[in-house]
Amino acid sequence: MDSTSATEASFPRIIIVGGGFGGLAAARALSKAPARVLLIDKTNHHVFQPLLYQVATSVLSPEHIAAPIRHVLHRQTNVTVLQATVTGVDVGKKVCLVDGVPLPLPYDYLVLATGVRHSYFGHNEYAEYAPGLKTLTDAVQFRNKILGAFEICERTPTPQDHLELLTFVVVGGGPTGVELAGAIAELARQTLAAEFRRFDPASLKLILVEAGPRILPSFAESLAAAATAKLTKLGVEVRTGAPVEKVDAEGVIVRGERIRTRNVFWAAGVKGSPAAHWLGVEADRAGRAKVLADCSVPAHPEIFVVGDTACLEEGGKPLPGVAQVAIQQGRYVGRLIAGRLKGEPAPPAFKYFDKGNLATVGRNFAVMEAFGIRTAGLFAKLVWAFVHIQFLVLTSSRIGTLFRWSWKLLTRQRLARLIIEPESPRDARSQPVHS
Amino acid sequence: MDSTSATEASFPRIIIVGGGFGGLAAARALSKAPARVLLIDKTNHHVFQPLLYQVATSVLSPEHIAAPIRHVLHRQTNVTVLQATVTGVDVGKKVCLVDGVPLPLPYDYLVLATGVRHSYFGHNEYAEYAPGLKTLTDAVQFRNKILGAFEICERTPTPQDHLELLTFVVVGGGPTGVELAGAIAELARQTLAAEFRRFDPASLKLILVEAGPRILPSFAESLAAAATAKLTKLGVEVRTGAPVEKVDAEGVIVRGERIRTRNVFWAAGVKGSPAAHWLGVEADRAGRAKVLADCSVPAHPEIFVVGDTACLEEGGKPLPGVAQVAIQQGRYVGRLIAGRLKGEPAPPAFKYFDKGNLATVGRNFAVMEAFGIRTAGLFAKLVWAFVHIQFLVLTSSRIGTLFRWSWKLLTRQRLARLIIEPESPRDARSQPVHS
Repeated sequence: MDSTSATEASFPRIIIVGGGFGGLAAARALSKAPARVLLIDKTNHHVFQPLLYQVATSVLSPEHIAAPIRHVLHRQTNVTVLQATVTGVDVGKKVCLVDGVPLPLPYDYLVLATGVRHSYFGHNEYAEYAPGLKTLTDAVQFRNKILGAFEICERTPTPQDHLELLTFVVVGGGPTGVELAGAIAELARQTLAAEFRRFDPASLKLILVEAGPRILPSFAESLAAAATAKLTKLGVEVRTGAPVEKVDAEGVIVRGERIRTRNVFWAAGVKGSPAAHWLGVEADRAGRAKVLADCSVPAHPEIFVVGDTACLEEGGKPLPGVAQVAIQQGRYVGRLIAGRLKGEPAPPAFKYFDKGNLATVGRNFAVMEAFGIRTAGLFAKLVWAFVHIQFLVLTSSRIGTLFRWSWKLLTRQRLARLIIEPESPRDARSQPVHS
Repeated sequence: MDSTSATEASFPRIIIVGGGFGGLAAARALSKAPARVLLIDKTNHHVFQPLLYQVATSVLSPEHIAAPIRHVLHRQTNVTVLQATVTGVDVGKKVCLVDGVPLPLPYDYLVLATGVRHSYFGHNEYAEYAPGLKTLTDAVQFRNKILGAFEICERTPTPQDHLELLTFVVVGGGPTGVELAGAIAELARQTLAAEFRRFDPASLKLILVEAGPRILPSFAESLAAAATAKLTKLGVEVRTGAPVEKVDAEGVIVRGERIRTRNVFWAAGVKGSPAAHWLGVEADRAGRAKVLADCSVPAHPEIFVVGDTACLEEGGKPLPGVAQVAIQQGRYVGRLIAGRLKGEPAPPAFKYFDKGNLATVGRNFAVMEAFGIRTAGLFAKLVWAFVHIQFLVLTSSRIGTLFRWSWKLLTRQRLARLIIEPESPRDARSQPVHS
């Protein structure tokens, strides 16, 4: 079905790596450009990362917050989507190396929007015990782990095991950690409370630890205090000034104190994906590629890095790793390339338009800081819900998400409480049967 | 939260193994019985197996066709639900052996509703290459495999690989095989057709093989012919009288002919779970426990086997392995036990009330045989949809499923087209980053 015409075959090649907010925005901004756009992502879907915690805590299904990238872009005929893993870039030869694709893929323009991964601050051995939440796979594994802990408690009669199983530690007091802790508290205390016979799921111990002096450092202090009060009311113990000194099979050591637990979730830090490494350009301490004012990298006006994996300073401070920055940078770079193809003059430097910050705690509370308004409570939660629904890429996801949220609000039911094992036990299939 | 009163502690113990249609129906029929009911299932959810193929082909999400068993039964206070694997039964000591539970669990009454697994007719080595569809895990793996085949084609330029990747063989012409083949055809030819650039997903080759003389042997011959015609129209090649002689890494050998493919799906046969083996009772050729007219096993009036894993003859023919038989037997046995606890006389023998047969092919066609009515086409499809919606256990699943079906009908979109890898690549997390 290669319907490329002779003219199209001469169009410049643009490779976008990553189908997150940044990559998708760049591809869309190129929709009318005379170019052959190739978008490559490791997975087949765009995922709305800010709602991953709702999949992990059984509110939403993976399908609500993720959409097949090729479906999102299928009407845009100048885009080809590949599910594949980029392993490197040869900036001299202008090619991407892609796992499973025999020949390197040439580009005239390259947009890297490869995001971040978790940072364990030099302790990669923590990863095994303290998973983070960046992909649908992570979210489904979290869900299995949280629900599985309750199931084990119900079937094991020994209370000393229960203590470890029912202690949940969330490391990191940013929005992700705060939202996750609140959601686990609600899951246990509201949804699951009446469904177990042999122990009380509401008896769980939930601790949010933050190394810094307070949670939600990107928000005003008054909002952080309101969020802390709300978390405490939901039964979350908030420990600030509490750096994690060790994570192992038995739990965590926080400021000298050993907390025994089998459930540690990591929301403490990120580092840039290998984009800077591929390009051989300077990176900041978090591994993010330092980019120029137009998001290109020094000495390579044809290579751009956007979103979480780029480090761009505005007013002496690096832009935060949030969806809005990625979307705006992606769109900016897409338009810049489209303009350059048309011979237009270069646009002014990228400028971030800050639409504010939101974080939610529990079902009827959020904190919000936007356009000079600071508020905590139900109104902020409504804004939060509205904004998040809006950013889902598919109409069907919006309808589904609205339905799930309404249903949960009315019934406190969480419909996605499934433990789906990644593998069927092979022996169960081949076991001999008496006959 | 063990709120068992002194009276309750003296109630007889009833263990139900399996939370499928049979086990759930038995538990519900015991809702008012003075008994301590323990329902044990390997998974935490009841799954509506007849719709698993719709998860495998990206129409529905796992959450639509599955519900947490403890949620379904949470209002029934005499039931405790355990997610655990039963490994055996000691009929002399009247205990169940359960993996991960240190002490054997005693029962006064035992109901085994453990279902079936796939049968490869003595060739268990086929399982690796020709998975079957019985669990959510199976369905998610099917979905990954089907969608993954298209993704590989899009990124590999060599057409000889495409041939193997784009050939799909479904083994078994019963309702499961027929529905699955029709759904794969629609997925490729309607939903995916416009979304790939380098090859045409509609060019896939789809073969349904059946060893017997025709498909849908449980239906009238005219309906089987109508279904064959519909499948052919959808682009499925139907081969009957075509026994599978071998399945291996390269594909299948069907009646002497080698078909090269990486996608073989097994819908050809089942065998009973080890229930008969656990009990040491006689089993039929498919490994199903032969039961008496009241679903109990010989010499053990306190042990019952229901559903797919039981073999009960009516009019000289064993009852079919369908949901209706399991539901009716489960309910019968639950009521029988409840009656016996009240000292009521034994009920008459179990009698199956046959509500008929349905199978669907594509979006606007089904075949139906019920109450003397035989019909093929849109009307049967509407009945099919109505019946299937009705049997979903949760209201929320019904609403969600109706929405997805309507959406697909209107837009031909399949919303659940996600490839979710079971594991995150560990190295991606611990890989060093340039800084």
